This record gives sequence, C-alpha cells and structure tokens, in this order.
Amino acid sequence: MCLVVVGSVAYDGVETPHGKVERMLGGACTYIALAASYFAPVKVVAVVGDDFAREDLDFLQSRGIGLEGLERVPGKTFYWAGVYSDDMNDRTTLQTDLNVFAGFDPKLPESYRGQPYLMLGNIQPALQRSVRAQMSNLRFAGGDTMNYWIGDYREELLETIRDWNFLLINDSEARMLAGCSNLRRAAARILEMGPGTLVIKRGEYGALLFRREGYFMVPGYLLEDVFDPTGAGDCFAGGFTGYLASQNATPEDDGLCSEVLRRAVIYGSVMGSFCCEKFGVDRFRTLTRAEIDARFDEFRRATAF
Amino acid sequence: MCLVVVGSVAYDGVETPHGKVERMLGGACTYIALAASYFAPVKVVAVVGDDFAREDLDFLQSRGIGLEGLERVPGKTFYWAGVYSDDMNDRTTLQTDLNVFAGFDPKLPESYRGQPYLMLGNIQPALQRSVRAQMSNLRFAGGDTMNYWIGDYREELLETIRDWNFLLINDSEARMLAGCSNLRRAAARILEMGPGTLVIKRGEYGALLFRREGYFMVPGYLLEDVFDPTGAGDCFAGGFTGYLASQNATPEDDGLCSEVLRRAVIYGSVMGSFCCEKFGVDRFRTLTRAEIDARFDEFRRATAF
Repeated sequence: MCLVVVGSVAYDGVETPHGKVERMLGGACTYIALAASYFAPVKVVAVVGDDFAREDLDFLQSRGIGLEGLERVPGKTFYWAGVYSDDMNDRTTLQTDLNVFAGFDPKLPESYRGQPYLMLGNIQPALQRSVRAQMSNLRFAGGDTMNYWIGDYREELLETIRDWNFLLINDSEARMLAGCSNLRRAAARILEMGPGTLVIKRGEYGALLFRREGYFMVPGYLLEDVFDPTGAGDCFAGGFTGYLASQNATPEDDGLCSEVLRRAVIYGSVMGSFCCEKFGVDRFRTLTRAEIDARFDEFRRATAF
Repeated sequence: MCLVVVGSVAYDGVETPHGKVERMLGGACTYIALAASYFAPVKVVAVVGDDFAREDLDFLQSRGIGLEGLERVPGKTFYWAGVYSDDMNDRTTLQTDLNVFAGFDPKLPESYRGQPYLMLGNIQPALQRSVRAQMSNLRFAGGDTMNYWIGDYREELLETIRDWNFLLINDSEARMLAGCSNLRRAAARILEMGPGTLVIKRGEYGALLFRREGYFMVPGYLLEDVFDPTGAGDCFAGGFTGYLASQNATPEDDGLCSEVLRRAVIYGSVMGSFCCEKFGVDRFRTLTRAEIDARFDEFRRATAF
C-alpha cells in the first residue's frame, strides 16, 4: 500500500567531527521518503526552487519515489546549515533560509488523495491539517512535530494531532508537549490528546512505543561509527511508516504493540542507524533491503531473552 | 550456590527532589547483598564501627545474609552524604567520612574461602585482589570499580581485573577505562584486558552485555516515580550476580549471551529499578520474589518482537 510523505526537501550544510559538507540533499521529507522506499511505494509532497539539481531528482526517482507532488517554483530551495558537538549529541544551527519553503501550501495531486497511509513531516500544524483534510481514504495517518510548534502554536497543534493515528516525536518534545518530565506519565497524557499510538525517539538510546494497553521498548543500535546523525529521526519515521504501509496495518491491529507495530519500531531503529553511517543521504545510495533485514535480525539476537 | 560480596557498609545522607534523609543504611556491599539475597545465599565481607545499629544488623539478617565477615571495630561507620539534581541524573557529594573504612583490610572467614561466586564491590583494586586471592574454589568472580581507580590506580586496576570473569561498570567508566568514546569499541578493548564478560550499566537507559562472540542489550525500566537512585547500580550488580549464583553459571556457559547471562542482566535491571522506588534500602523491606518475577515478565513483554 502506498505512503504519502509531506515535509521539507532541502539542501543542508553539515559539519561533524568527521568532516564538513557545504551543500547536500536533505530535508525531513527526503529522509522519510528514502527510508520508507525500501518497504512500500512512496509519494512525496514538497516544494523546491529552480536550483534543485537534476541529479537529486534522479536519485529520488531511482528509489521509485513518486514526485508528482514535488512542486518546483522560482527561487531557491530551503537551506539549513548546522554544526555538531564533538560527541554529536548537540548541534547548533548556523543558518536557516526558508526560501521557497516559506510559501509552501501543499496541494495534493489527484492521484495522492485516495492513498491509505500518510506521514506528515515536521511542518506548521495548520499545513499538516490541510494535507490530511485533502485525503479521503486514510487508514493510518500521523506525523512528527517539534519544540517550536509545541511552544508557540500549542492550540493549533493540539487541534491537528487530535485526528492522528500516531504521533512520532523525541523525548524532550514528549516532555514539553505533556508538561511532565517522567516519560511514562508524559506518554499517558499524550495518548489522551488523540493519537492511539505514540512513538518516542530517544536518539542513541532507542525508542519507546506506547498505546493505552501497554508499551514496547527497544534500545538503540550500537554503531561503531556515527558520521552524521542528520536525518536519523526522519529515517526512523520512514522505516516505521514504510513498514506499516507494507503490512497494510490498521490502527486497530490487535491492541498494543501488535507484532506489526513492534516490528515497525525495529525497522525505524534500523533505518535511523543506517542513516548515521554516512553523510547526509549517502548511505541510501548503496543500502540494500538484505542489509536492512540483517540488521533487523541482529536487533532480535541482541535483545531476545 | 553461595555468593560472597565485598564492599562498603555505610550510613548515607541523601537529598532528592522527593525529600531528605539525614542518616540511613547504605554502602555498596549492603545494596549488592540485599538485592542478591532474593536469589542465592549471600555472605558479606565489610567493616562497620561501634555505632552500627542493631536494627540494621537485624534487617540484613532478616534477609538471610551471612554476617560472619562483617567486622565491627571501634570508631564510626563510613558516612557519605550527597544531593541529587532536579532530574536526578547528577549528584553532588557533600561529605565523605571514611572513618573505620579507611583501615579496611578484608580477611575472609574460613567458611567463605571455598565459596564459588564472588562480587567485589567498588573498593581499592589491591584490596579486591587480596580478597580474590583468599578464595580457593572460584567459579565466577568479578566486580565493579570507579573513575578514581581508573584514573589514579590504573596499573593496579589492570592487574586486578585481568583475572576476573566479569567486570560491571557504568558507561562513563567504560569509556575512561578503554580510552575510547564509542561504547562498542570500548567494550572490545576492555574484553582484551581479561574479563570474558563485560556489563555496562547506562542508568535510566538500561544495560549492555558484551562477550567476544557478541552482545546483548536491554533498555531501562520505565519507572513512574524515582524517589532515590542511590544504590541502583549496586542493586543491578546484586541481581546479576545473585541470579548467576542461583543458576550455578560458569564463565564458559554456551558462549555469549547464554540464556543465563541474559536473564542475569534482566534481573540486574529489575533489582536496580526497584531500588529507586523508595529511599535508600527501604524498598527491600517489603519487596517479594513474586514482585521481582512479575517485573522480569514485564521486561519480556515490553521487549519481545
């Protein structure tokens, strides 16, 4: 089943202790779509400027990603630049040029509107709501958000996520959204806000899945080398939603932590871990489904008892 | 099979966001022994002053803990006081009075020397080596250490752990000992130092088990209330070693991550989590083996996929 992905397609400048790249393909929508493309057909909704390179379009197309909803308008593509701390647990934004993204007002192509799976990358909640409203046949829809929307657009955000089947955020966002530092209590409060499924990403420490009936936890994959964590959270989202779409999952799937949801969290973790192994999206130029499944099996071996 | 535990028996003053206790039973040996006592017979080696309270002796005895090796000498019992940060992830030591512990030179009673399991709490490496040398029939021996010994007594520590079957430390100690920030690489280096089994504790984020052939990881238990984290790492050690002793485990147990070692890590995590639920050792005044096994089962439900 097909997954529609909405969010930013961008160019990033990134510096980590392992090196520096001035300009490379990035953006939440890009990472989500690339990761999801290993599991299910993907269609993206985004906007780029007339500087968007042919080779980047070709790369997305080579992964079978549907680009009918990728609007191309005069101006420059969204640009973000940042530098990571020595341990790569913190990053400082050096530059954010919204460019054509400032006028992003997603209009879904007709061929998108009947698709059953929707992943809303981190954009303004009102835009997320607008996209969801354009889809008529949703089976499982949800998305990501960030501290900025939680803090300054709280009511708009609450109205938006009320209709979501899943919310996928990191631990500090979960604490902020719930107004509660304990993650278990925070999760219980967030599940009262609408989404029946909550996934909390914890970076190198793994992820948590909550539903009213129970929870599931997975430790982070132990990488030997982290070259660039940019996009890892979005790749988690891509692995999670791509796998759900491939399994034709529904929100009702046998209560909490159905086998499908648990495996989706593992595939999310797997895709996030691969993302860190090279700069930007480079790992996805060579990654194979066999490597993904081998790491999935490694997770199982390393956690079963 | 019986487990011998060596380390400090102390009085602690602890302040957390949930309250303050001026003086309560504490010390690594105390926490390890209490946690291990739910799994196997335990005998302690430690020293206390003549101020050590009858009720504290009675409590240890009520858990069946062997006290023949608990030396009582003139003077005051080791006293430590500290205060935790608001999120309880950091603590500041306010006072450390070694008192009678300064002259601790453990001499094992004859009845201890033939026991097969040994857990060396965090004390000077030379003393750990001396205790191990007094035991003639060891099947599985190892222990804990800390940044102070790793930094200032490195050679003595390396000579000590060379003969251990297991080393059980936290993540920052592992990085310091290996001189390497990546935990997977750090673990590989430490396994070259002698111990065939390495357990790395990560506080609220769980624990990792490494052997040359592979690894096992477990996320941290999600507590709703953390009252006092003091002793949680030692309770992990007690659950881990107590369970190994109860299963008559050997270092050769079917390669990495034998079922026994994996379960020992889970029982360690379970005991560490219970420890945080009340101040000091108070949780062990009421905790039952049934509660422990219920939490073990919860770990399995929350991590299986």
